[in-house]
Amino acid sequence: MSKQRYGAGIWHFATYVDRYATDGYGEPRSIIDAIEIAGRVKDLSVVDLNWPFFGGDFSNDQVKAALDKAGLSVIGITPEIYTRTFRKGAFTNPDPGVRAEAHDLVTRACDVVRFFGADYVKLWPGQDGWDYPFQVDHQAVWCHSIEGIGALAAENPDLKFVIEYKPREPRVHMSYSGVARTLLGIEKMGQPNVGILLDFGHALFGGESAADSAQLAIDHGRLFGMDVNDNLRAWDDDMVAGTVHPIELFEFFYTLRKNEWEGVWQLDQFPFREDSIQAADLAIDFLKRCEAGLDRLDWAAMAKAQAAHDALTAQRLAQEALYG
Amino acid sequence: MSKQRYGAGIWHFATYVDRYATDGYGEPRSIIDAIEIAGRVKDLSVVDLNWPFFGGDFSNDQVKAALDKAGLSVIGITPEIYTRTFRKGAFTNPDPGVRAEAHDLVTRACDVVRFFGADYVKLWPGQDGWDYPFQVDHQAVWCHSIEGIGALAAENPDLKFVIEYKPREPRVHMSYSGVARTLLGIEKMGQPNVGILLDFGHALFGGESAADSAQLAIDHGRLFGMDVNDNLRAWDDDMVAGTVHPIELFEFFYTLRKNEWEGVWQLDQFPFREDSIQAADLAIDFLKRCEAGLDRLDWAAMAKAQAAHDALTAQRLAQEALYG
Amino acid sequence: MSKQRYGAGIWHFATYVDRYATDGYGEPRSIIDAIEIAGRVKDLSVVDLNWPFFGGDFSNDQVKAALDKAGLSVIGITPEIYTRTFRKGAFTNPDPGVRAEAHDLVTRACDVVRFFGADYVKLWPGQDGWDYPFQVDHQAVWCHSIEGIGALAAENPDLKFVIEYKPREPRVHMSYSGVARTLLGIEKMGQPNVGILLDFGHALFGGESAADSAQLAIDHGRLFGMDVNDNLRAWDDDMVAGTVHPIELFEFFYTLRKNEWEGVWQLDQFPFREDSIQAADLAIDFLKRCEAGLDRLDWAAMAKAQAAHDALTAQRLAQEALYG
Amino acid sequence: MSKQRYGAGIWHFATYVDRYATDGYGEPRSIIDAIEIAGRVKDLSVVDLNWPFFGGDFSNDQVKAALDKAGLSVIGITPEIYTRTFRKGAFTNPDPGVRAEAHDLVTRACDVVRFFGADYVKLWPGQDGWDYPFQVDHQAVWCHSIEGIGALAAENPDLKFVIEYKPREPRVHMSYSGVARTLLGIEKMGQPNVGILLDFGHALFGGESAADSAQLAIDHGRLFGMDVNDNLRAWDDDMVAGTVHPIELFEFFYTLRKNEWEGVWQLDQFPFREDSIQAADLAIDFLKRCEAGLDRLDWAAMAKAQAAHDALTAQRLAQEALYG
Repeated sequence: MSKQRYGAGIWHFATYVDRYATDGYGEPRSIIDAIEIAGRVKDLSVVDLNWPFFGGDFSNDQVKAALDKAGLSVIGITPEIYTRTFRKGAFTNPDPGVRAEAHDLVTRACDVVRFFGADYVKLWPGQDGWDYPFQVDHQAVWCHSIEGIGALAAENPDLKFVIEYKPREPRVHMSYSGVARTLLGIEKMGQPNVGILLDFGHALFGGESAADSAQLAIDHGRLFGMDVNDNLRAWDDDMVAGTVHPIELFEFFYTLRKNEWEGVWQLDQFPFREDSIQAADLAIDFLKRCEAGLDRLDWAAMAKAQAAHDALTAQRLAQEALYG
Repeated sequence: MSKQRYGAGIWHFATYVDRYATDGYGEPRSIIDAIEIAGRVKDLSVVDLNWPFFGGDFSNDQVKAALDKAGLSVIGITPEIYTRTFRKGAFTNPDPGVRAEAHDLVTRACDVVRFFGADYVKLWPGQDGWDYPFQVDHQAVWCHSIEGIGALAAENPDLKFVIEYKPREPRVHMSYSGVARTLLGIEKMGQPNVGILLDFGHALFGGESAADSAQLAIDHGRLFGMDVNDNLRAWDDDMVAGTVHPIELFEFFYTLRKNEWEGVWQLDQFPFREDSIQAADLAIDFLKRCEAGLDRLDWAAMAKAQAAHDALTAQRLAQEALYG
Repeated sequence: MSKQRYGAGIWHFATYVDRYATDGYGEPRSIIDAIEIAGRVKDLSVVDLNWPFFGGDFSNDQVKAALDKAGLSVIGITPEIYTRTFRKGAFTNPDPGVRAEAHDLVTRACDVVRFFGADYVKLWPGQDGWDYPFQVDHQAVWCHSIEGIGALAAENPDLKFVIEYKPREPRVHMSYSGVARTLLGIEKMGQPNVGILLDFGHALFGGESAADSAQLAIDHGRLFGMDVNDNLRAWDDDMVAGTVHPIELFEFFYTLRKNEWEGVWQLDQFPFREDSIQAADLAIDFLKRCEAGLDRLDWAAMAKAQAAHDALTAQRLAQEALYG
Repeated sequence: MSKQRYGAGIWHFATYVDRYATDGYGEPRSIIDAIEIAGRVKDLSVVDLNWPFFGGDFSNDQVKAALDKAGLSVIGITPEIYTRTFRKGAFTNPDPGVRAEAHDLVTRACDVVRFFGADYVKLWPGQDGWDYPFQVDHQAVWCHSIEGIGALAAENPDLKFVIEYKPREPRVHMSYSGVARTLLGIEKMGQPNVGILLDFGHALFGGESAADSAQLAIDHGRLFGMDVNDNLRAWDDDMVAGTVHPIELFEFFYTLRKNEWEGVWQLDQFPFREDSIQAADLAIDFLKRCEAGLDRLDWAAMAKAQAAHDALTAQRLAQEALYG
């Protein structure tokens, strides 16, 4: 029996606004509501929580109680370093006062991680970057990107920090744009407790092969977390995993197992117009198909095909394993 | 002296939310606030108004008074057929009751057009389309797209309706995705009072050449309006016009003048993090540079170069004219 | 037992050059060589032939003999209107003499179609378009695009002509860029014998949903042919069908069957570095999986899900049917 | 008076083939022909030479004589590690024998660099990468990428090696795909004599900001060369520099001057259908406009705007400086 654990960002079970549907895609939900809904997904074990908690003024204890009731534990805390205060950047904000606020917010988030015994602080610096040609001094922006996270890692050596890179949105260019750029930055920080949270969709969106990105992060000892979803390769659509690119998602999981990477398989989906429980169930059912496919796969034959760069044999093996 | 009139969507002077900065990129503004700010832009003559009016319960008379004070008149009314009610589509919603609501909303918007003596009802069916493979019956969706707008045009023969196409966002696929698709749909409607509002950025985003799209719409007698902005060709970034693609923007205006198309040059920009007055001024200054460039251009030499498909001569002429 | 017939462009079995590997990706092959190789693919019935025949001065009879020996018949003839003579365009060339040459070449290709009893003349006007802003008069280019093909169709009413659209390559912008643009042009021609050959990969590359494109062409009575392959949505990679986007390919075939479209399922693949027989076999095996999936699919449940725009149910049904 | 030197890849003055126009876009030219043509460009000082020399069996002395006559010197030698022999990779070829051939070819190219007193060996590993999901062992491919170039650098410490990265083409995925990935690889090699040749168009194509990429490479001490062209951000179109993205090209040169980077400004253009001399002249004229713009720019005001991330002021300054 599989011991694979599945997780999800708690925002999977929230409702959303965007720049057009400013009244939201559904009734607002609090984090307590979202946890209750998450609890109804089959096979979900862990969640990543935005912090400060949304939809009300909830204590850690209240959230803990809701999680216990739902049978969920916490894998990570995501401090909201991308809201109005940080609209011109958190770590790279031109205003040192705002950079200090970002530092302070994440520092407080560290205590939330400790409270819940979570695995990491997740940093998604979506407002850190630039929009226009000539807008910024690129050296300064990149230095701030590195220093801001490096300082937090140094001050909290008991915790792990994960950076979730993405090419863009809401910024037109994000500083932590891709796997290699993020690894370059992490190496510069020189801290052992900073790694990557690799989002499959962000890799696709950035023109990467997610399997290659995972291998690179693993080879640098920096793959600390992952999540999956799907998109049309041109935007972070956060669609249900497996609905568009099943083969590449299977290759991503193949790479994880090949390297004996044994973390949680998480979902980062935004079901704007769909039922969030069904969206999670559909994705997890596909993830289980991937697991079964990896059990079925002829690993020796695959290794041999890959050693010869034999695309057709490798594809045939992959299809046979995945489709069963 | 130039008699060119400039306009802007009133949302240019609002503040925004997105799925991350849910607390907004600035303090909320009402449409009255936005009109007051718009009035401070140099050389702005007309605005396009979202309707129902945002930020409060304002009467047409109150809005008219604000416009008069700001020295602005109304070019179009944009009924909000993309908010929560219409999240699964306005004209293509699977629920006939919601389709009727969309019809009713636009019908009431027609009276607002009449009140303000505006040029058109602007339809931007951003939620009409689909997200996932297999989600919809494509024939049915396209039929609904055509019937919904066709019926409105037939019922309001005294008004013009413009469709602003876009490849995607917020839907992963929008039904009115490009210039040719929209013209196909309009021809099927068979109404004289339906045309295209061509957004320069949407054309770029869709892989079109905006100059070619404008020519095609003009040749079908359907270019009823236009607006401009800029982006990185992969998303509807709604950046300030001229900041990334000045040459293609210049070619777009060249095509309009060549065809003696004499409507308003409008802005559709979303200055999330910028001052909205400065953003409009910078764009309009570039538009004036384009005007002056068209005055300077050697039109006969350009026609000769184009007849020979001589890209290098044509480019040299365009650069010389634009840069002065 | 399935009666589905499979086909391929004969270039699938050629070797290739590109701008870097100018000495080619393999030893040159003649069309006779290619036919012999095509004959070794399991389940291939028909081929589309480039004309003039490549690799030697072969008569129609010699090619016919090779085809007979290989057990293949001809579905279409593709006149080479994209070689050096036509590098600045075939139908849209600025030189009327070259436009006449294109007309003459296609006219002679019509006789080859008649000789082989093929279904159509296939026109892929890859050099018709433009590269640079300001290079062309867009009205003139589009008129030439329509007139050139319209005249051929009028002069050869006994034959069918299919236009294979593509967004770009080798031109930066092709005139027949997408499904809707091509339908607009065909409607303007006003000839009953001009239709679309829909290439699945070109639709993906153009940001279309191939299922939607097929439905649109069918609803206009213009889907005369199709072929498949795969790519990364950003270029015409002509990879093996099913290797990247199996779900959308399955939706494409679903749409064909739903409309009782019963033509040949063809391959348009360029196996630059792969064995061409294995590449065809892998693709056809996936196409057979699609056929079996369509047999398994719960069509009534799918129709119901689509009527409700219920993406998750529709996807689950599709996955279950395809994966078996 | 400007002392800026201008250069070009000698292939700018060749003719081309692609997979469609297999008979080429013009009469074949030898490298001697191309050098003669290059000599007629105004203001060209240096060229980068493909090696082995194309179009005939020419000695170094013969090529030297042609260069002298044309008034040109050599900046780099580009060994052709992307032709048929290397179609499955040069440094990453699955066959160790082919990897040895690549090593041997580059080693011999080193002597050509020494003969001409050129600045560097340019490595553009266009066939090193992969096409299909599951095709390769990503760890092995990346290791080979690093080892192959690292060994050459170690064996030839008197020479500089530059890697020209690109996202793709002819491979669907190139190993040296972007600036950060390439820097990661170079750091792993640990050799002082390996750097980046930054192609402006490859950066654009990869979703990078070329100014940011240049700054990053400079900050790592690895910007050894550069070249420019233009494209539509989705492919390596190698169009004439300045014809599509003048502002970002200006920002790229701004970054070079700001860092006192004083190398040659080179062209990497493929004028498939254009006159190659005119194409070079048009580009160099635009480069001179950029130079003049940098002289005119208010550097202090720009630095102040960038420190505040003030996009609008920065853009206004840039436009005023560039347009004059």
